[in-house]
Amino acid sequence: MKRGRVAYAGAIHEATPDGDRVRLADGRVRDEHEVVWLPPFEPGTIFALGLNYAEHAKELQFSKQEEPLVFLKGPGGVIGHRGDTRRPADVTFMHYECELAVVIGRVARNVKRADAMQYVAGYTIANDYAIRDYLENYYRPNLRVKNRDGGTVLGPWLVDAADVADVGSLELRTWVNGELKQRGNTRDLVTGIPELIEYLSGFMTLAPGDVILTGTPEGVVNVNAGDEVACEIDGLGRLVNTIASDADFARG
Amino acid sequence: MKRGRVAYAGAIHEATPDGDRVRLADGRVRDEHEVVWLPPFEPGTIFALGLNYAEHAKELQFSKQEEPLVFLKGPGGVIGHRGDTRRPADVTFMHYECELAVVIGRVARNVKRADAMQYVAGYTIANDYAIRDYLENYYRPNLRVKNRDGGTVLGPWLVDAADVADVGSLELRTWVNGELKQRGNTRDLVTGIPELIEYLSGFMTLAPGDVILTGTPEGVVNVNAGDEVACEIDGLGRLVNTIASDADFARG
Repeated sequence: MKRGRVAYAGAIHEATPDGDRVRLADGRVRDEHEVVWLPPFEPGTIFALGLNYAEHAKELQFSKQEEPLVFLKGPGGVIGHRGDTRRPADVTFMHYECELAVVIGRVARNVKRADAMQYVAGYTIANDYAIRDYLENYYRPNLRVKNRDGGTVLGPWLVDAADVADVGSLELRTWVNGELKQRGNTRDLVTGIPELIEYLSGFMTLAPGDVILTGTPEGVVNVNAGDEVACEIDGLGRLVNTIASDADFARG
Repeated sequence: MKRGRVAYAGAIHEATPDGDRVRLADGRVRDEHEVVWLPPFEPGTIFALGLNYAEHAKELQFSKQEEPLVFLKGPGGVIGHRGDTRRPADVTFMHYECELAVVIGRVARNVKRADAMQYVAGYTIANDYAIRDYLENYYRPNLRVKNRDGGTVLGPWLVDAADVADVGSLELRTWVNGELKQRGNTRDLVTGIPELIEYLSGFMTLAPGDVILTGTPEGVVNVNAGDEVACEIDGLGRLVNTIASDADFARG
């Protein structure tokens, strides 16, 4: 099952797909442009992987890490499908990152990889924008690179784990203004989902709603104000949003 | 005014100090050991400073950064006064870090340092435990060093900003089993509070409940299971908690 959350006519509604349209929990069916899309769930702790596709690590000129490179993201920067992501005027290079997002469904502590998939509620698409200007700095880069307002887009749907036949073989594709720019497959993850859950739950407790953004494959290019960016993952749908300049953003 | 949150007799209560005891919002007064102390507010985004006292940076053999070294902490590891912090069996060096915590009270975006203090709701004490084993690793250390269950202790009180005469000159002291081990003063912060708010709000929006742990002075030593650690800051009170081994923790 695919579940989303939208705001419409003064309230927040659980929603499901109805062909190309969206069906609210109260039975109303609306066009996807008639509603405001929210992230499909309230994220708890947001983990994100750096350099988790070997070809992308090469593209950024980083060498492979011996251990998963996991960092945290704050809750303030998360938006839903069709939202605006601001491109600050003072940066020179901002890129999208299409990522498979794994949503935890049960409290997980010291989970072994063989059991790990039982702790997954479902999956969604993340577009985890990065401001590459600050990426080379030691230690602290992620905050300025990865914590901008509207810089983490999640959705449109949370797809039940049971409905994804083989999460280890999903193609990811990113389109900028209709042109295919990024293409990868989850089979190329350096550290796979069971190993990530084993690693994280080995030193801290994971809770329902925690989400792991599993990293992005190669093929990131600069985006500019006005660009429409669409991230697709097999079986999960299509997450679209727009890049806004500071001025566009303020004008709305 | 000092405000806390405690659990007692089946409910969560707002609380205020009453001498050495605690007064619940409904008027009952109890001994501090009769209640379960919670963090005095629900934290939003949790920012933490590394190496923000020069002498402590020297102690860790890191050189001074040119820019504030800020990282994020997840919400899962935060506990209140008198809670247990687990010392995992597989680590060799775990230390306390007494820190002034600055709580944001108003939405802050592009705030200049001259205006920054208007955005502060108040202050509390943080004990931001670190597992030093992993501290030397490049880039990813903070997750394993700084995101353990119960590794961030906040409280006991949120003290209104108006009640702290000079936040730029508060002494911090940490006692382990009654012995003074750490002593510093907020006048030695490398990057002060107004500058931190200007820095962070310059690239992202801060919201009420966001909290900045401003870093710890020199004087960190290893702690062991059974130790009682007390962090004091002038005017804010005394935050006490206990170190538990894996076995103690499981036994409760």
